[in-house]
Amino acid sequence: MEEREISQAVIRRLPRYYRYLGELLEHDVERISSNDLSKRMKVTASQIRQDLNNFGGFGQQGYGYNVKYLYTEIGKILGLDVKHNIIIIGAGNLGQALANYEAFESRGFLLKGIFDVNPKLTGISVRGIPIRTMEDLVDFLKVNEIEIGVLTIPKEYAVEVAGLLTANGVKAIWNFAHIDLNLPPNIVVENVHLSESLMRLSYNITRCNAEQKNEK
Amino acid sequence: MEEREISQAVIRRLPRYYRYLGELLEHDVERISSNDLSKRMKVTASQIRQDLNNFGGFGQQGYGYNVKYLYTEIGKILGLDVKHNIIIIGAGNLGQALANYEAFESRGFLLKGIFDVNPKLTGISVRGIPIRTMEDLVDFLKVNEIEIGVLTIPKEYAVEVAGLLTANGVKAIWNFAHIDLNLPPNIVVENVHLSESLMRLSYNITRCNAEQKNEK
Repeated sequence: MEEREISQAVIRRLPRYYRYLGELLEHDVERISSNDLSKRMKVTASQIRQDLNNFGGFGQQGYGYNVKYLYTEIGKILGLDVKHNIIIIGAGNLGQALANYEAFESRGFLLKGIFDVNPKLTGISVRGIPIRTMEDLVDFLKVNEIEIGVLTIPKEYAVEVAGLLTANGVKAIWNFAHIDLNLPPNIVVENVHLSESLMRLSYNITRCNAEQKNEK
Repeated sequence: MEEREISQAVIRRLPRYYRYLGELLEHDVERISSNDLSKRMKVTASQIRQDLNNFGGFGQQGYGYNVKYLYTEIGKILGLDVKHNIIIIGAGNLGQALANYEAFESRGFLLKGIFDVNPKLTGISVRGIPIRTMEDLVDFLKVNEIEIGVLTIPKEYAVEVAGLLTANGVKAIWNFAHIDLNLPPNIVVENVHLSESLMRLSYNITRCNAEQKNEK
């Protein structure tokens, strides 16, 4: 494991490298040059070389990158070789969509529980995992070592539930609730604010329409 | 509408301003200083002033910002005052979660149709909108002016479906499929790659655990 600080910008790009390398592996590609990778990923070859150099230069001049090796090493850097126990709070459509996400397991995320306030959902299973009532949450956290909590609940409850989770040992929150959680700095938070993504889309459409009008 | 180019970094922050201002409005706050907004949003006051100056300085020295005015103006910049017809391709859990998203309408996104390959879903309604078969898609696009297509389908089909949509007048794709679509530059694409978000979370947990070990 590299100890030096890697910029968040590079980190943000790593999952995309990981995805492309995974696709190459699926197609039995053993080696790839930064130029070929550049064409596929629409990133300059020099950017690719620079990014991957952060991790100790997996490339060999004239031979390109060993796809399997690079895939495995980036996986390690991303922590995908470590198992993480994960629970989902909120078993609505979004919560169930995530619960059904099969790639969880292959990336080391083991879904251990699903919780919801709605008593009608209690006992229903998603991929073999029963939905539990929120009243069982704290007891569940005491006997299961849960590292990640996924919040797919309305924003009104998100701050309180995030507090409950982290007070009971959860170290990271994958937050889909449309609110900033303001947790202590030792808690890792990754936000997915879908409505902000939709607003960026809206902005870019408006912009694009305006440009096309100007061209006419 | 401002004509000068605004950096993508500022654009990325606007939806978050919009969200905070919306919350202030809900609590009947009429004016706010950049300092108060700074404390809530955990962004420096000078960053806030700089960002909002891009849009012609809505702030008045000593009076702060008029919340309603700023909210409305940012909404306009984001194109939220314009109506966009939207369809969802893929009526699985994620597609249905998005179809049930009530804030769509209030932000100008009018859900006009939901499509799925699974014949078992045909005719089921989500919020009054029936799920249609994919075979009806092209005819539907001919008689309805659809601006945005949401892709909540497996990556294997995403490129083909995106091509079909844009060939039939769709101008923007909100892409949840885990693949880059490589569409022409006049098509607006906003990607939500959930598994990349999960990998960033994984990386940050690994990093955080390593730091805590080092401290001991």
